[in-house]
Amino acid sequence: MGIGDDAAVLQPDPQQQLVISTDTLVAEVHFRASDPPATVGHKALAVNFSDMAAMGAKPQWVLLNLTLPTIDVAWLDPFIKGFAQLLVQHNVQLVGGDTTQGPLSIGVTVLGQTPRAITRNGAQVGDCVVVSGELGGAAFALQHPGSDPSCDQQLQQPTPRLDIATQVQGLATAMIDLSDGLLQDLGHLCQASGVVAELELSQIPHPPVIRQDPRWQEFMLSGGDDYQLCFTINPSDQARLPADCQVIGVILADGDADQGRVRVMHQQQAIDTRAGGYQHFTEAP
Amino acid sequence: MGIGDDAAVLQPDPQQQLVISTDTLVAEVHFRASDPPATVGHKALAVNFSDMAAMGAKPQWVLLNLTLPTIDVAWLDPFIKGFAQLLVQHNVQLVGGDTTQGPLSIGVTVLGQTPRAITRNGAQVGDCVVVSGELGGAAFALQHPGSDPSCDQQLQQPTPRLDIATQVQGLATAMIDLSDGLLQDLGHLCQASGVVAELELSQIPHPPVIRQDPRWQEFMLSGGDDYQLCFTINPSDQARLPADCQVIGVILADGDADQGRVRVMHQQQAIDTRAGGYQHFTEAP
Repeated sequence: MGIGDDAAVLQPDPQQQLVISTDTLVAEVHFRASDPPATVGHKALAVNFSDMAAMGAKPQWVLLNLTLPTIDVAWLDPFIKGFAQLLVQHNVQLVGGDTTQGPLSIGVTVLGQTPRAITRNGAQVGDCVVVSGELGGAAFALQHPGSDPSCDQQLQQPTPRLDIATQVQGLATAMIDLSDGLLQDLGHLCQASGVVAELELSQIPHPPVIRQDPRWQEFMLSGGDDYQLCFTINPSDQARLPADCQVIGVILADGDADQGRVRVMHQQQAIDTRAGGYQHFTEAP
Repeated sequence: MGIGDDAAVLQPDPQQQLVISTDTLVAEVHFRASDPPATVGHKALAVNFSDMAAMGAKPQWVLLNLTLPTIDVAWLDPFIKGFAQLLVQHNVQLVGGDTTQGPLSIGVTVLGQTPRAITRNGAQVGDCVVVSGELGGAAFALQHPGSDPSCDQQLQQPTPRLDIATQVQGLATAMIDLSDGLLQDLGHLCQASGVVAELELSQIPHPPVIRQDPRWQEFMLSGGDDYQLCFTINPSDQARLPADCQVIGVILADGDADQGRVRVMHQQQAIDTRAGGYQHFTEAP
């Protein structure tokens, strides 16, 4: 239900494309009921804003479906504050939703607009593979909570890269956000584009602190929840890359995709990455 | 997530208004896990289509968020069939959603388009109050399951009145759908419009079978789940009313709204309707 009517009325800009994304976050699967509610509110919205960023879109309208066991103001009040803070920061309007009694879960639907949606299927052979920010911080924080404030922040209150999304219009040939880990998400992009990616391990940006854990390469390659963007660009466009973005590899033809969509090279040798993608902190069956 | 990308890309008609509505149906609150899954699938979509109808809109795109304890094909397959059947019937496209592990619940988001949204706040003093179809059948079926196939159908597989919605463009001054019962929902319309409604009990259409229960007036006035439309029109437009619609009262000025937004008259006497609105079959706290 829209606020105060059966549905909300929107007037999208006819010059732009409308994009819509929806996600459900279930307690004890995507977050813990004991997590600070303000960070749950932030993250519920941030992951959906990240989907908008991945399409090169600016979020405009949000609907919130809250399912709550009871109306617990001590939880609800900070949750709404965390949610609203990110809304206000990006000048996005809450236009509808509902509140239902039941086991704790959060449904968020975001609508955004973009001059032209950047999809997963546009990567071309010869393109550079680019990531924003640093990878592996969230996975490190999950294993070592409280040991690095910046990694903790990355895990609990990720910043959707809406700043990058608007700068790569007309530049990115394909884009995805990194929610499930670089190998898995870039694999989806390659699959959709019918190509293969070859990455150079030493080029992948990461917070130095994660090297304290011998599993740091796994954190970086397969750790989820970083919510950075991964995209492809024509190599002639490298000079136009936004700040905080780094080339980490190249797109190759789909000659032998059976060996995996994403190969990681280190000192001219392919490294074994069969560990696979990251499954969030509680595994679904 | 959109199907196959981070979000779905839509291209709304710039000549129309875009309306969006979302609802969560939780097992044991809005439906029973033991209900026939095909009817659950139908109803989850039908109640959202009814919100579109209430705005005078035609549904165009749907997102489905399913939270399931396990992937139970014996439940999922008929659920999806019931859902898809109604989608296909109204030529609506499923453009996104997600599947999550957790306690059974169903989130549905519908987007529709309308030349001009019909909201709740346009009722004018002197307007006629109109309802589509018959009221009270769903509430009767809830109390007497299996005793009348047509009432059972009304409860389990309601038909969203999208047929009426398109016929009352330029005719209805305000509109709402009847999910929580006539008194409660029409009360919301009157509240939004700053008016009062006076109904004539004998004019309210209902299936004759409900008179078998002495509570039939309560079923008709406060029974929910009928998903008919209630709207207001200028009295000079009565000849233009679609078939299956009936005038049941009149809109009055907000002189003494303290006595209730909706008054029901029978043989020139106001009848006592303090029983109030219907709270679905399992009450939320």
